[in-house]
Amino acid sequence: MLTTCAKGTPARIGTTGPRLPYVSVTPEEFRQNGYALIDWITDYIEGIEAFPVIDPELQPGDVRAALPAHPPTAIEPFDAVLRDLDAVILPGITHWQHPNFFAYFPANSSYSSILGELASAGLSVQGMSWITSPACTEVETLMLDWMQELLGLPQRFRSDSATGGGVIHGSASEATLAAILAARWRTTNGRVNLDGDTSSLVAYATTQAHSSIEKGLRIAGIGLDRMRMVPVDENFAMRVDELVRMMTADIDAGLTPFFVCATHGTTSSTSFDPTAEIATVCNANNVWLHVDAAMSGIAALAPEYRWVNNGLELADSYCTNPHKWMGVNFDCDLFWTADRAALLGALSILPEYLRSKAAESGAVIDYRDWQVPLGRRFRSLKLWFTIRCDGIESIQTMIREHVRLTELLAQWVVADHRFEVVAPHPLNLLCIRLREGNEATDSLIERANLTGKALFTRTVLNTQSTLRFSIGSRLTTERHVLDGWQLLQSLAQ
Amino acid sequence: MLTTCAKGTPARIGTTGPRLPYVSVTPEEFRQNGYALIDWITDYIEGIEAFPVIDPELQPGDVRAALPAHPPTAIEPFDAVLRDLDAVILPGITHWQHPNFFAYFPANSSYSSILGELASAGLSVQGMSWITSPACTEVETLMLDWMQELLGLPQRFRSDSATGGGVIHGSASEATLAAILAARWRTTNGRVNLDGDTSSLVAYATTQAHSSIEKGLRIAGIGLDRMRMVPVDENFAMRVDELVRMMTADIDAGLTPFFVCATHGTTSSTSFDPTAEIATVCNANNVWLHVDAAMSGIAALAPEYRWVNNGLELADSYCTNPHKWMGVNFDCDLFWTADRAALLGALSILPEYLRSKAAESGAVIDYRDWQVPLGRRFRSLKLWFTIRCDGIESIQTMIREHVRLTELLAQWVVADHRFEVVAPHPLNLLCIRLREGNEATDSLIERANLTGKALFTRTVLNTQSTLRFSIGSRLTTERHVLDGWQLLQSLAQ
Repeated sequence: MLTTCAKGTPARIGTTGPRLPYVSVTPEEFRQNGYALIDWITDYIEGIEAFPVIDPELQPGDVRAALPAHPPTAIEPFDAVLRDLDAVILPGITHWQHPNFFAYFPANSSYSSILGELASAGLSVQGMSWITSPACTEVETLMLDWMQELLGLPQRFRSDSATGGGVIHGSASEATLAAILAARWRTTNGRVNLDGDTSSLVAYATTQAHSSIEKGLRIAGIGLDRMRMVPVDENFAMRVDELVRMMTADIDAGLTPFFVCATHGTTSSTSFDPTAEIATVCNANNVWLHVDAAMSGIAALAPEYRWVNNGLELADSYCTNPHKWMGVNFDCDLFWTADRAALLGALSILPEYLRSKAAESGAVIDYRDWQVPLGRRFRSLKLWFTIRCDGIESIQTMIREHVRLTELLAQWVVADHRFEVVAPHPLNLLCIRLREGNEATDSLIERANLTGKALFTRTVLNTQSTLRFSIGSRLTTERHVLDGWQLLQSLAQ
Repeated sequence: MLTTCAKGTPARIGTTGPRLPYVSVTPEEFRQNGYALIDWITDYIEGIEAFPVIDPELQPGDVRAALPAHPPTAIEPFDAVLRDLDAVILPGITHWQHPNFFAYFPANSSYSSILGELASAGLSVQGMSWITSPACTEVETLMLDWMQELLGLPQRFRSDSATGGGVIHGSASEATLAAILAARWRTTNGRVNLDGDTSSLVAYATTQAHSSIEKGLRIAGIGLDRMRMVPVDENFAMRVDELVRMMTADIDAGLTPFFVCATHGTTSSTSFDPTAEIATVCNANNVWLHVDAAMSGIAALAPEYRWVNNGLELADSYCTNPHKWMGVNFDCDLFWTADRAALLGALSILPEYLRSKAAESGAVIDYRDWQVPLGRRFRSLKLWFTIRCDGIESIQTMIREHVRLTELLAQWVVADHRFEVVAPHPLNLLCIRLREGNEATDSLIERANLTGKALFTRTVLNTQSTLRFSIGSRLTTERHVLDGWQLLQSLAQ
């Protein structure tokens, strides 16, 4: 049972006792500064359209040059910091929350989530073990189970399933690395922890997989020589016949396939690998199947897009990012596995100073054994705040609107014969190019970004330069997409 | 030059236009909720002594059981969230900011730092590349250079040095992994990125080194078979003669020593390895020397403790944690290297969708290549806010007071013949035990923690159970240390 604490009558430090000589900011100052910063953030977000998405004049070193080269020798008032946020920071950032931010993938953020992050900082607890802050662990586990339900994910990822569970990672890169390490441990029956021998292990992902796959494999001692770049079909999805061919060749050569990453929504074009078929191949060969749905997995919050989960039933692990399309500010990647024993085998180490009765009883989760770092923040608060105060319905509405706007944009593009759409657009990313060629497309991206009126990023699809028009900011409406498109049209002359 | 934006006259979204259907929380609600949360945090911190450090009655599952098993189907008001923070979260956490928190190492937090985290969440930008938010990169670089100056670290760690530079990592575990990967890359001349061959590599650290060293090595494909646990002397510091003996034996056996971790302030007892001597050995054998000063390095803010930096001149990399003893809330580990080329060689990957002119010019830093994840928050803001608004002087005063209290506590312990001090206490950790033996000491720790009046952790030194009395909370004063000690005395009967 939870005991509610006698919070009504606290022995207040600093009001009943003398002030600590080493506490510079009084509680009253914190309140006032905190209110001022809340106001400042509100004004920033509500007024964000007054800024260029990024100031095209900004040069390397400008921000640093505007700040003192040496640390201050005296305390400064918070007002001075707020002034610098306006004078130096705002002109020096890329405004990811800007409604005309069409670059990369979104990292959208909501008011509720910002308060979740504030609450986490205010509590400043460590969630490395259950005992170091039980609520930090238990709310996180519950949020992963809530999200399993909201996204319609397989039951075997739930924490109350026989072998699965979920955890919050900082990013999909970290989730991918954890999946690789779990796979490495399982394939070697744990021997890798002792001998470090990865020399026979081979991994597979498509040419379209995220760079974090190669990076994670490299870190885990699987070099590029043993990473197979599986070719893709005309929709940029993995060719399973090629996967089978490569895997067979590797087995024939005495190597051991151990890890496949399928992507649900690639970075270059939101293509979807055929996970159900890939899973059959993986299962037949005892290969770990990780599914990276960093961007697109959140679409499953809306029932009509639940097809983004196709094939997950047989996957060993999965990740998706509320910090991309759900308004939960970075860092919040959700990582699930159906084989927590392998993950724990790969990542747990128990020195004397971390032992606890709770952990030894097996009744609790110690999330430090589910990740690379030891320490961890109370990140589930921002997910909890967002689900409760923003509500899933408003997020569904946003996702639907972004998909509608992407389809609308595609219609506009098709009607302009100078442009072409170069990949399917199942969700909220449209890949386009100028028929004139690579140079024209590259130049268009560069000139569009130099206006500061919108921001796009470039990729390469089938050796062709491609402009990615990614629609995901919480503030983006039809007007912004139209403005962005008309900007491109005007510059394409 | 920075262009100051016309922030005075923004085109306000949501006030001039219709409200977005998918934004549930209005700006006005955010302001009010934000003020309320600022008040709540102030009340929590100022009233923290009303709570047990951890509720000894709390059982696994209690927190989860107090919350709905399924996600809500309707939006809830922020008041409901605040009520749950009081009713469910506060009774369910371990209060790391409590002045009677003497467990682990501190993760202390200051009011200024909490606002830095709030500002970071409010801006919600990504700092993976310079171009994705120039200020995020440049303020971080500047803060690392400021800290080099404030801590008196070697010039060759500065970003404006020929070969060095610094970065914020989430934790020392991540910094250690980065150091291992850089070392692995340098020793293999980069071949490891292709062949993943780590089979000849050997690493060294003492029996007292943090578990993250073994974890980092394991992740990087250097299993326990090739990690040498170097014996320690009577002060728990590395025996350099043993290091030389082990390294020579490995070289004779055809292996390649590639990495040594020296610790400045071990977790079990704050022992200091003799880094200057170790560095001589490492340099002679082309071995990467990483120095882990996660807890103790921050002491160098006070000139009289600058001896904690001894030997760093020849180290290849170094880390220390403002989130432990400087009041910058987790996560804020500072990692410097004198060989950034090796770090970049180990961690950089450049797909098309991350290319930029700025990066290709070489004039900017892309911090994604200095860390495992791709994405990153604007974490330097909390360091910047803390240095400016708390000021270094107040932090120096706190550090001095904690060291004084540790010395005072040692005097009390020495005067009680039932107890003994079992290790040197150069800074803010006192390791003690009951002369009666291990069982009595274990029982004392357990019974003390069950009171909820203080929290201690246990370690083992020379096979003896040891109580760690770690003094590092920002709110801890002499009264709290005395209370903790008298609690131990009363239970030792």
